[in-house]
Amino acid sequence: MGKKYGEKHKVGYYECDVTGHMTQPAMLAVAIEISEAQSAALGRDSHFVQSLGVTWIITNYQITYNRLPRALETITVSTMAMEYNKFFCYRNFWLEDEAGNELVKIEAVFALMDLNTRKVATVSDEIIAPYGSEKVKKIRRYPKLAKVEAEKGASQPYRVRFYDIDNNHHVNNSVYFTWIFDVLGYDFLSSHTPLSTAIRFEKEVEYGNQVESHYQIVETAEGTIETRHEIRCGDVVCCEANIVWQKA
Amino acid sequence: MGKKYGEKHKVGYYECDVTGHMTQPAMLAVAIEISEAQSAALGRDSHFVQSLGVTWIITNYQITYNRLPRALETITVSTMAMEYNKFFCYRNFWLEDEAGNELVKIEAVFALMDLNTRKVATVSDEIIAPYGSEKVKKIRRYPKLAKVEAEKGASQPYRVRFYDIDNNHHVNNSVYFTWIFDVLGYDFLSSHTPLSTAIRFEKEVEYGNQVESHYQIVETAEGTIETRHEIRCGDVVCCEANIVWQKA
Repeated sequence: MGKKYGEKHKVGYYECDVTGHMTQPAMLAVAIEISEAQSAALGRDSHFVQSLGVTWIITNYQITYNRLPRALETITVSTMAMEYNKFFCYRNFWLEDEAGNELVKIEAVFALMDLNTRKVATVSDEIIAPYGSEKVKKIRRYPKLAKVEAEKGASQPYRVRFYDIDNNHHVNNSVYFTWIFDVLGYDFLSSHTPLSTAIRFEKEVEYGNQVESHYQIVETAEGTIETRHEIRCGDVVCCEANIVWQKA
Repeated sequence: MGKKYGEKHKVGYYECDVTGHMTQPAMLAVAIEISEAQSAALGRDSHFVQSLGVTWIITNYQITYNRLPRALETITVSTMAMEYNKFFCYRNFWLEDEAGNELVKIEAVFALMDLNTRKVATVSDEIIAPYGSEKVKKIRRYPKLAKVEAEKGASQPYRVRFYDIDNNHHVNNSVYFTWIFDVLGYDFLSSHTPLSTAIRFEKEVEYGNQVESHYQIVETAEGTIETRHEIRCGDVVCCEANIVWQKA
């Protein structure tokens, strides 16, 4: 495990939805901001990384929610580079309340993409050493995501907007969450709260694309509800997710 | 003039567009957050106001930009209730850099809407007294906004999303800016910077609505560029704006 880095954050109304809870895109935005602050403090900001011809991408998130942060609550957002192997870096994020209780835990898988070839590059010591995380041989395997069944899903189109593009000229990862959550609609979102999210990013979506956000709602044997998601750009699946919910 | 209230704010990457400058929706979000903090400090938060059967709405913004805030810059966001009359409250916001230079000035016109009739209510002393602003007779008149010419505009549809609805169950005012700016497209937005914005909100847009964001780009005699905007819901104009730009 590497060095832990954290900052306090007061949750703004504008980071919350109609229920007064912090939105998933806002949670990821503050989490990623904290990891960028840590990288800058360690002399490994995005300019440095890009000067080596690569840029960070995120391939997976596994998120568990004990309780969603609320408007005007002061939370602590912290992060730690846990371990890495030849291709992947495993980094955790924690959102905690003022008493130190864990509200949300985000396990993220980062990789480096070669800026010329757009393919995954190996993780170099020059980039990773300052974080103090452990090198491991093992590549983590995550449970397979349940697919949207062909005849049982529904979908809605979303166009990539100017503000969806971040300063790396990519569609920011948090935007996929907007497409995935929004398609479930007001009635569902205002009456359910997430317990866990597993999401995998497969292909980059670009400015000017229109995506289809496919979803299916499944009641599980345990009495919870699972939603299955695919973001498709034409015939290509760009992102898949499974979310487990309970009634709010 | 009333009491001034301000807080420091570190501009996050996630509040910035691809040019690394703070987006207009993000600027408004932090500004409104500050005025809500002032209201809470004065015992006039939204719960108190709504307990009187009314809620704040914003009818106009006049915004002037000297320089847009940049990612990771610490700015001071402050606000002051300037004056009010029977129906309108005039409140200014300032975004300043660390040296105290004014970056952005926002003049906002607030009114109270009756929660039952959805019509404008009179401004009561009970609500406004703690702000210490001056009562005036005069109702300010703002310059008429130039309209999109019927044959010279273009438009794009936007659907109201779940995250566009704020905790007052309204489409947040900052969302209109997303529709107005986004329709101009990547090439325009990445090569122009705004000098001023005048915007008027006329009708509420609701969740489930699809709006059309109409616009027209006009070169002015002074060598600047003016964009004219209308957000329409069916045949109804819900919001109008004029923005003056210069090449970035």
